[in-house]
Amino acid sequence: MRAITNPSFLIHYHHPSVASAVIRSLRHRLPLSAPSFIKVRALSTSASYAELDNARTGRSGSLASPPTSSDFKQKIDVNPPKGTRDFPPEEMRLRSWLFQNFREVSQSFGFEEIDFPVLESEALFVRKAGEEIRDQLYCFEDRGNRRVALRPELTPSLARLVIQKGKSVSLPLKWFAIGQCWRYERMTRGRRREHYQWNMDIIGVPNVTAEAELISSIITFFKRIGITAVDVGFKVSSRKVLQEVLRRYSVPDNLFGRVCVTIDKLEKIPMDDIKKELRAAELSEQAVEELLQILTVKSLEELEEKLGSSVEVIADLKQLFSLAEKYGYSEWIQFDASIVRGLAYYTGIVFEGFDREGKLRAICGGGRYDRLLSTFGGEDVPACGFGFGDAVIVELLKERGLLPELSPQVQNIVCSLDQDLQGAASLVAARLRDKGQTVDLVLENKPLKWVFKRASRINAQRLIIVGSSEWEKGVVGVKMLSSGEQYEIKVDELE
Amino acid sequence: MRAITNPSFLIHYHHPSVASAVIRSLRHRLPLSAPSFIKVRALSTSASYAELDNARTGRSGSLASPPTSSDFKQKIDVNPPKGTRDFPPEEMRLRSWLFQNFREVSQSFGFEEIDFPVLESEALFVRKAGEEIRDQLYCFEDRGNRRVALRPELTPSLARLVIQKGKSVSLPLKWFAIGQCWRYERMTRGRRREHYQWNMDIIGVPNVTAEAELISSIITFFKRIGITAVDVGFKVSSRKVLQEVLRRYSVPDNLFGRVCVTIDKLEKIPMDDIKKELRAAELSEQAVEELLQILTVKSLEELEEKLGSSVEVIADLKQLFSLAEKYGYSEWIQFDASIVRGLAYYTGIVFEGFDREGKLRAICGGGRYDRLLSTFGGEDVPACGFGFGDAVIVELLKERGLLPELSPQVQNIVCSLDQDLQGAASLVAARLRDKGQTVDLVLENKPLKWVFKRASRINAQRLIIVGSSEWEKGVVGVKMLSSGEQYEIKVDELE
Repeated sequence: MRAITNPSFLIHYHHPSVASAVIRSLRHRLPLSAPSFIKVRALSTSASYAELDNARTGRSGSLASPPTSSDFKQKIDVNPPKGTRDFPPEEMRLRSWLFQNFREVSQSFGFEEIDFPVLESEALFVRKAGEEIRDQLYCFEDRGNRRVALRPELTPSLARLVIQKGKSVSLPLKWFAIGQCWRYERMTRGRRREHYQWNMDIIGVPNVTAEAELISSIITFFKRIGITAVDVGFKVSSRKVLQEVLRRYSVPDNLFGRVCVTIDKLEKIPMDDIKKELRAAELSEQAVEELLQILTVKSLEELEEKLGSSVEVIADLKQLFSLAEKYGYSEWIQFDASIVRGLAYYTGIVFEGFDREGKLRAICGGGRYDRLLSTFGGEDVPACGFGFGDAVIVELLKERGLLPELSPQVQNIVCSLDQDLQGAASLVAARLRDKGQTVDLVLENKPLKWVFKRASRINAQRLIIVGSSEWEKGVVGVKMLSSGEQYEIKVDELE
Repeated sequence: MRAITNPSFLIHYHHPSVASAVIRSLRHRLPLSAPSFIKVRALSTSASYAELDNARTGRSGSLASPPTSSDFKQKIDVNPPKGTRDFPPEEMRLRSWLFQNFREVSQSFGFEEIDFPVLESEALFVRKAGEEIRDQLYCFEDRGNRRVALRPELTPSLARLVIQKGKSVSLPLKWFAIGQCWRYERMTRGRRREHYQWNMDIIGVPNVTAEAELISSIITFFKRIGITAVDVGFKVSSRKVLQEVLRRYSVPDNLFGRVCVTIDKLEKIPMDDIKKELRAAELSEQAVEELLQILTVKSLEELEEKLGSSVEVIADLKQLFSLAEKYGYSEWIQFDASIVRGLAYYTGIVFEGFDREGKLRAICGGGRYDRLLSTFGGEDVPACGFGFGDAVIVELLKERGLLPELSPQVQNIVCSLDQDLQGAASLVAARLRDKGQTVDLVLENKPLKWVFKRASRINAQRLIIVGSSEWEKGVVGVKMLSSGEQYEIKVDELE
């Protein structure tokens, strides 16, 4: 391997994709920029030269073609790529338990499950409003020179599907999804680059009855897994509060999303920068001050005093709180004008589930996005929804000691006492499975001590032993592992 | 917008990543190479110039930063990216049904579910054996200049995890996964670029009892969904057949994977090319002939005649067929030496599920891969597994008229007859959900005709009507939708 220190030969290439391929090809030869996790034990020098030659003559293939590996064994990093997770059985049990709860709650609210590709066109996510989510887009160029991105959220895909379905579906749609989302974030405090997100969306209902139903479903989920209103609350506001202020200062509508996104950064960037951004959006000094002022409002009464009782947003919020009472979740929710949410497309009610101890980031969040479809060239349909990640909730459950104990569960373990009886044991296992039983079949000739250890590890209830003298009589030995009870049973009678 | 026809200004850039960024940035300005799905309605000329200027001065950002969108609305393509799928409710029901069957079968065999990141290090998949899968790798470079790939299969990730777990897990491991896999294929005959794959793997069992168990689980799955041995069969062989031939001609071990991969292409590329590839691997004319000859063998007896009865592969295959008899699936399987499979890492038994009418591609396939872990720098552990995609099986079910009828199922639909009773309806819905019922709550004030139509669309069994005179008495109206039976019931007594 040798480093190439003079990249000036690039001037030979007049075709962009060739030059780019060369650059990429070279990068793989340069020790410093080679992926650090690949430790190539040996590399044929001639192969290396041959490749370099290919690069020079522009024959190194398409833009994203894989580099050539050596003939020799590689030592790979056994960890998943930075920011991602493996799910070995113990982690997977927790994930399945969580998803099952998401699913059952969604279904109890009459929602139907949907999904979209994890890889979408980048265009779907590129909104010009200064959103954090856009800066963190996990985007690539594929082999067909298409700009694609691993989805950072599910709502744009949902909007795309709703436009696609058009008049062929009857409104309202009540759809939920549990999908993996990606953000290329700086890795801090256990933040990962992928997470799963539970989404529920109601498409076609303009009334806040929809938001009330969504919040009810999240609270149903919390209760189900043991979380109470003492642990978690919802802060609720409406973007129409800000809209009302902007309207009074004649700020053009098309700046609305950008202003909201800026204001959402209040706790993340210095106030001076916020003000600078707002003034850059052509807001007057006075408008900026009034915006910042209204964000401090913590009660509906005070908001009504400031905005007057005739504005739409007051009626919306009053109805929402009244519905919350009927649903029986008043103690979970509170008005808080500082809640804005970071996505550009929200237009009405916004809400956020938070840990009352204030230790964790937002647990979930959502709101109304009545104008998203038209930004994609579709006809607008009233819509609202929420996203609920799989990370913060698990942290919360841990904090509260509410993580479920999930252990492997196999009803039977079947083993033969003799190599020659392996087929007989297979027959017994097949028979039990036919009867709906779960069976771990011991596939090698192992001492009973080993079998008992395994039985205990998988929490088997019953051990079934196939021994030769019993087998000749058409029976097998059974040991109930909790009681220690032992008996023989005819194979035909096993259930 | 204007096209730039003279890319020769590239010579100004001496830093690869800057040049690359410029190339990419320009590509987005060139009408011909802009992603065809973005139809920008309007684009500010000045913005365009400003960007161009940024590009010229090399300030256009990092390698994979997103292009700047215009301030104006975009018309997006409402279809998912080429080769990918949306899952609207009707498709999702089928997928969930399929996955549920995968899951239940795996669990009845005592397997535990696992998963890995869909985005892995490219190094995990780059094997130098001429595999089709490698040419189709969906690979990228991420923002941190890491070579990553959307996984084309699950086995390498599994091997990575097994190495990572090391001595902390007790063998054998019986793990299953249902994960999305990606291949950048040329799009033909309904082939897609992503599919879901069900995998079951047994790690730590050197004996063919493991392969017999895996095949049994696939057959259990087939039977469960109505597919019989008349529809589907398994062709079984062992890579040790080829290994035996290569051994006799003293072909070095390290060529084994490559020879197998070449032979697997027999039905895809011309015989002359196969022979050329084999001779390139330094096989003698005679070795090539004998290899091709042995592939035509269709019975164990004939194989035994050719190889002699003392070789390991004969004992393996005999044991497998004998176990198949005990399990009761002899009629499903047949020996066929032409089965090799296209992945480089298989070392022993290989098998393939096929449609007996011969209309479809392989339904599933798998085998033993006892030496995969050491190619990653780990210690080898005997292992075998299979992959079962979600595409061909659905085609087969369609062909045989076996696709299940899966319709939405919500037990109750609740509606209020009066806008003011929306809260009361919420209360009724919440109450029913508390009792474990699934409820679609009508969120707007709609005429009863509309409600009945919706009830029928979601297959509701019961309509619950909240009317004002009844509500004052603490009762609601119930209509059983199948029988038409109608009655009133106290809210407290609703179950």
